[in-house]
Amino acid sequence: MGEPEMWGRRSWELLSTVRERSPLVQCITNLVSMDLMANVLLAGGASPAMVHSLPEINDFTPHTDALLINIGTLSEAWLPSMMAAAAAAARSGRPWVLDPVAVSASDFRLNACLQLLLLRPAVIRGNASEIIGISNASRVQGSKGADSSHESVEAIDAAKSLALSTGAVVAVTGAVDLVTDGKQVMAVTNGVPMLQKITATGCAVTALIAAFVAVTPQRALQATACALAVFGLAGEIGMATSRGPASLRMNLIDSLHGMDEEAVTSGVNIQHRASADLSPQP
Amino acid sequence: MGEPEMWGRRSWELLSTVRERSPLVQCITNLVSMDLMANVLLAGGASPAMVHSLPEINDFTPHTDALLINIGTLSEAWLPSMMAAAAAAARSGRPWVLDPVAVSASDFRLNACLQLLLLRPAVIRGNASEIIGISNASRVQGSKGADSSHESVEAIDAAKSLALSTGAVVAVTGAVDLVTDGKQVMAVTNGVPMLQKITATGCAVTALIAAFVAVTPQRALQATACALAVFGLAGEIGMATSRGPASLRMNLIDSLHGMDEEAVTSGVNIQHRASADLSPQP
Amino acid sequence: MGEPEMWGRRSWELLSTVRERSPLVQCITNLVSMDLMANVLLAGGASPAMVHSLPEINDFTPHTDALLINIGTLSEAWLPSMMAAAAAAARSGRPWVLDPVAVSASDFRLNACLQLLLLRPAVIRGNASEIIGISNASRVQGSKGADSSHESVEAIDAAKSLALSTGAVVAVTGAVDLVTDGKQVMAVTNGVPMLQKITATGCAVTALIAAFVAVTPQRALQATACALAVFGLAGEIGMATSRGPASLRMNLIDSLHGMDEEAVTSGVNIQHRASADLSPQP
Repeated sequence: MGEPEMWGRRSWELLSTVRERSPLVQCITNLVSMDLMANVLLAGGASPAMVHSLPEINDFTPHTDALLINIGTLSEAWLPSMMAAAAAAARSGRPWVLDPVAVSASDFRLNACLQLLLLRPAVIRGNASEIIGISNASRVQGSKGADSSHESVEAIDAAKSLALSTGAVVAVTGAVDLVTDGKQVMAVTNGVPMLQKITATGCAVTALIAAFVAVTPQRALQATACALAVFGLAGEIGMATSRGPASLRMNLIDSLHGMDEEAVTSGVNIQHRASADLSPQP
Repeated sequence: MGEPEMWGRRSWELLSTVRERSPLVQCITNLVSMDLMANVLLAGGASPAMVHSLPEINDFTPHTDALLINIGTLSEAWLPSMMAAAAAAARSGRPWVLDPVAVSASDFRLNACLQLLLLRPAVIRGNASEIIGISNASRVQGSKGADSSHESVEAIDAAKSLALSTGAVVAVTGAVDLVTDGKQVMAVTNGVPMLQKITATGCAVTALIAAFVAVTPQRALQATACALAVFGLAGEIGMATSRGPASLRMNLIDSLHGMDEEAVTSGVNIQHRASADLSPQP
Repeated sequence: MGEPEMWGRRSWELLSTVRERSPLVQCITNLVSMDLMANVLLAGGASPAMVHSLPEINDFTPHTDALLINIGTLSEAWLPSMMAAAAAAARSGRPWVLDPVAVSASDFRLNACLQLLLLRPAVIRGNASEIIGISNASRVQGSKGADSSHESVEAIDAAKSLALSTGAVVAVTGAVDLVTDGKQVMAVTNGVPMLQKITATGCAVTALIAAFVAVTPQRALQATACALAVFGLAGEIGMATSRGPASLRMNLIDSLHGMDEEAVTSGVNIQHRASADLSPQP
């Protein structure tokens, strides 16, 4: 069995396990993404729980299977809940995943992310500008809201360095998604460009990563690559019957829900990448 | 005219009245459900108003036709608004409806619900775990976020007891929906399983109950059963052309909006249930 | 080239410029509208940023191309951010657009709008009841949540007076949309009635106005009329393949994303209106 086949099988196994166990994924996420994120988790077979009130964290978080924290509409009111939930997840041995949306847009956002990093996320997923921003712990020139002004390959050094310094798996998403633990690098080439024309698809796939990591926390690198591939593949399948971003949004969710073994094993596109292929273009 | 026909006619009359009067339904609801809830109310013919700021309650709530309170993303900041709005509705003689989402997930949530119960909701709608949880005023083992780990029939005793102690109509939704005022029990069998794969459908149908009760507040039991049946029927009709949960979400709303007399009178499935049929399975 | 053709060309030029420059539009908007608004901005070619935390305003707002403020779910916590962002936009010479949703629903809402007006919005967009309400700075009898109980033409005098007193372009939307700077009046007749059965379409088109004004801030009157026409036209095109409000919502976004020169130049319907045509019906 070659590498592509192995990853196809692994992705199918993980998706099947998520469907079977229906992991409870607590999401403390931005206000724009909640509907899409919950529906993507349901379509993927997981059980979403949007719980973000500080007085509930200690009762609730220890009973979840994974936690997603997304700072897209970070506020002073929500930051203490994020910190408490990440700490509770860490204490309970639950994996948690960080989505540092537009981390360089303000000092407030950057400082919040740096605090959160100390609580040991299992995975960090962002676009190239976000990963460079959080890795450099400084503002990136030309960053523009939640959109990236860099290609994913430009962020690979920052991603590796961030992975090594935090112990997290780091995923840089873009036309090609790169996933690294600081040593190995995996490239995922599933997906279609129009996904970027739908708000919160990046947020939603990070939640799906949390669901996949929930069922195999010891293999966060593989789980992250598989979740990205499955989501991207759902986009590819959905694109075939879509006429624009809104129909793609619908078809993406339907495809994720209906995806079968044949579609996953033949459609997933994950490969190890040698470092030589990853040098940023001059 | 037999019982099924009678309920079909009653459902059509109520839906027609909602479309004609367009009751103003104030919703203080969770952040995930807002879009779907507002669109379901519009498709049902009602006029939604998502107003939840404390300084607005006394100006606004007395002019509404009904109030919906949903604790899905309860926070300390919003609870005072919920209390004030429920009190204002009660003072103004407006019916209000409670959706105790994941009531057993935390002490904070449970205590909030118990406080709200004192303000006399006209209807309480939850899944079996939620109704058992609020009825027992204690944590239910094995409850899992907003999903139910019980069948609706297992909650019928809790529902009756809750109805008798609060004076509210209580609806337990699931594969079969049961509605009771503590004495009579109605069973609604409209709906399709895939509705549970769409986030906030339970929240949305509770808002539709508020719209139906708004136009016939003296008959909350009937209005609740009819709203559940009409919503479930919209799901059945929508399912025929759906390929997954996201297309069902779209088709459900389109079907609710376009539903005509023939569809309602022939499709609604409501029946009285004798207590003997409702014993929990051993 | 006649007037309709001129407006068709102008609309196409502006849409093309938005697609080319992808203006960053900061949105401080209500919780119901966020998903639709972000997706409409993306489909129109703009770059949405839902940023509303007070500590971020001074870092973020000066780097945006336009700002949208919508008071639909106004709270005491968010009002300071709205004030700070409007002030920052004004200081930085960025246009900002006000959507005074349900302004007459409470004193809190009305007072907030009156404060915001002092910070010089470039455009104000509301339905007839909202424009009359904010213009009269007093409650309008019979206003009903976010829905209008007036025709747009009934609000034209209020709109002109509001435009003259604030220096803003004022748009009154309804079956016919009227846009005025206090002297000229433009009428836009694109759109379909079913748009009113989709929550937040009014909110979303106001954000699109912000994107259009961002690329031609000196011509806010024209940009506003063109944005309303393009959005309404997307609704017309989408309606052809829709079966209800939810499929229209999807098709509207797809149509906006895919709209080409031929569709815009032949479909846009904007005209100057003589004052004589605009007297309210007795």
